[in-house]
Amino acid sequence: MEAKLRSTDDLPLEPVSGGEGTARQLLTGPGEGAGFHMRRFVMEPGGGMPRHRNQVEHQQYVLRGRASVGLGDETVTVRAGSVVHIPAGVPHWYRAEGSEPFEFLCVVPDDPDRIELVDGG
Amino acid sequence: MEAKLRSTDDLPLEPVSGGEGTARQLLTGPGEGAGFHMRRFVMEPGGGMPRHRNQVEHQQYVLRGRASVGLGDETVTVRAGSVVHIPAGVPHWYRAEGSEPFEFLCVVPDDPDRIELVDGG
Repeated sequence: MEAKLRSTDDLPLEPVSGGEGTARQLLTGPGEGAGFHMRRFVMEPGGGMPRHRNQVEHQQYVLRGRASVGLGDETVTVRAGSVVHIPAGVPHWYRAEGSEPFEFLCVVPDDPDRIELVDGG
Repeated sequence: MEAKLRSTDDLPLEPVSGGEGTARQLLTGPGEGAGFHMRRFVMEPGGGMPRHRNQVEHQQYVLRGRASVGLGDETVTVRAGSVVHIPAGVPHWYRAEGSEPFEFLCVVPDDPDRIELVDGG
């Protein structure tokens, strides 16, 4: 297999259904590597995702901006350099704060996932 | 399992033996998640890593700065927003260019790894 170089400038950024002002970019693809892949999310100021849970864990790194994030029953503030680990099944939500877009990387296993909305956000 | 929030400000940044002006920070740990974990590398201007290969693949995202990177027999230039996928066994090297530190995330499987230096860098 060969090494690959890509740039966020050349990859499609697609709206996330269920989110508000939220777009997602596949940086590497499921099935391309050793069982995990990378996505980048961009949330416009005031945008975000409602409370939900996934069937796969998330390992995230905040690139830019600031957000309130719900993790289980807690609400935390994250910014560039924050590292968030959300095990499978833990309810979570995002709301971009401030005046610049909130951007983060989210690494997930290649396993099938289903998003389930959860009350209480 | 509970969600975890960390910050790069609070995590140790440790020199990488074999590298020059290169430090590594574990963002999540092996065994913590679904078979992969995240590290952050910081290379001072002029620093880098000599040509080597690993037993595990790398999925990388450039956070800051600029570098020349050897991928197999090619040399590419990477900068913030570059995505680099290096399959296991592919020889590669890094040299930080310009006047600011070169920083990138590197996601790897939890599998055991051994670094092997390779001539020709």
